[in-house]
Amino acid sequence: MSDNHVPSARTRVVREPHRGIYDRTTAYKILDEGLICHIGFAVDGQPFVIPTGYGRAGDNLYVHGSAASRMLRNLDHGVPICFTVTLLDGLVLARSIFNHSMNYRSVVVLGTAIAVKEREEKLEALRTISEHIVPGRWVESRQPNEQELKATLVMRLPISEFSAKVRQGPPIDDEEDLGFPTWAGVIPFQTLARPPVPDPKLDSQYQVPEYVEHYSRCK
Amino acid sequence: MSDNHVPSARTRVVREPHRGIYDRTTAYKILDEGLICHIGFAVDGQPFVIPTGYGRAGDNLYVHGSAASRMLRNLDHGVPICFTVTLLDGLVLARSIFNHSMNYRSVVVLGTAIAVKEREEKLEALRTISEHIVPGRWVESRQPNEQELKATLVMRLPISEFSAKVRQGPPIDDEEDLGFPTWAGVIPFQTLARPPVPDPKLDSQYQVPEYVEHYSRCK
Repeated sequence: MSDNHVPSARTRVVREPHRGIYDRTTAYKILDEGLICHIGFAVDGQPFVIPTGYGRAGDNLYVHGSAASRMLRNLDHGVPICFTVTLLDGLVLARSIFNHSMNYRSVVVLGTAIAVKEREEKLEALRTISEHIVPGRWVESRQPNEQELKATLVMRLPISEFSAKVRQGPPIDDEEDLGFPTWAGVIPFQTLARPPVPDPKLDSQYQVPEYVEHYSRCK
Repeated sequence: MSDNHVPSARTRVVREPHRGIYDRTTAYKILDEGLICHIGFAVDGQPFVIPTGYGRAGDNLYVHGSAASRMLRNLDHGVPICFTVTLLDGLVLARSIFNHSMNYRSVVVLGTAIAVKEREEKLEALRTISEHIVPGRWVESRQPNEQELKATLVMRLPISEFSAKVRQGPPIDDEEDLGFPTWAGVIPFQTLARPPVPDPKLDSQYQVPEYVEHYSRCK
């Protein structure tokens, strides 16, 4: 069974169409590895792009924030948004300036985000976001109380109109440039979790938990 | 001499205003460390958010791309955009779910990007972008020819309406949560350049250059 998805005119990759990917498996793998998304929305014709944390449950994305934030105040009215996640994997040094590139994996989701009003879905969405960012943390934390739940706006965005774009591998130079006298290749990037820094107010009886000690985005 | 800048109603940080920073020194340091930006623009009311490389020269930002790309085709008409750079520095684990956060540094620039038509500025902008991403690379590469220059669209965005937002340091829990029995602190992130991977087509006479061998975004 293929999970291939037909892109809309708006999500079809126009530039370098061979890099466009429309299956959910690829898109969800990228979404599940990312930590922050960039959400775009327009207010009076002016676009805004705001970074924020998120989580995925099935075919829905969740973001949260203060009921006072400019972004979520606007999303609450049901405006169209663009949700983008980008993972930068490396720099691609070709022989020609023109063929320099980056290795990356990105997903773009278009749609209208809807505020989650129902208490149980809201709490479950917050758990989804928390477990997306630090798996294992939710049950070890002090749970949200009613006042905090009220002060938190949670938005749901269905993953229905989306595309992924991926560039991997070595530089691709024109044949006639292959003899140009310069080094060519890739500088790969890796985002590492460094040793955890305890809160200065932490009682020394609390050891670093396993899910913090071995934190990693690589599955 | 202060380089403080008065934010507009659109760039003033609304949520957690103490994290808003409006001086060019801070904003430029973030812009100069970042590798990709997320650009937001709207087409028929639908926002799009696209990741791309960039460079800064003085008080201008430059982005480039194929004259065929959807994004730059639209920018060329002088539409309002939002240019956002985000550096994720760590995950902040508080005792309460509600006070979990991330350490980050971000800059948002609003404005209208203009296509650079003049040949010399276009070439200089490409050099700026190249040197922003891999300092030292430009002079070692095969320079753009006239055909490539023509196929490349370069846009200039003046940094006039902008703000930065920064969160650093340990979690901030409510006083009554300090005794909650869980570890609390920060998981810091570091993006590392791993050993360079030569192009399989590279002649073995070319050694890894110093600017690749010791590539780092930390200044």
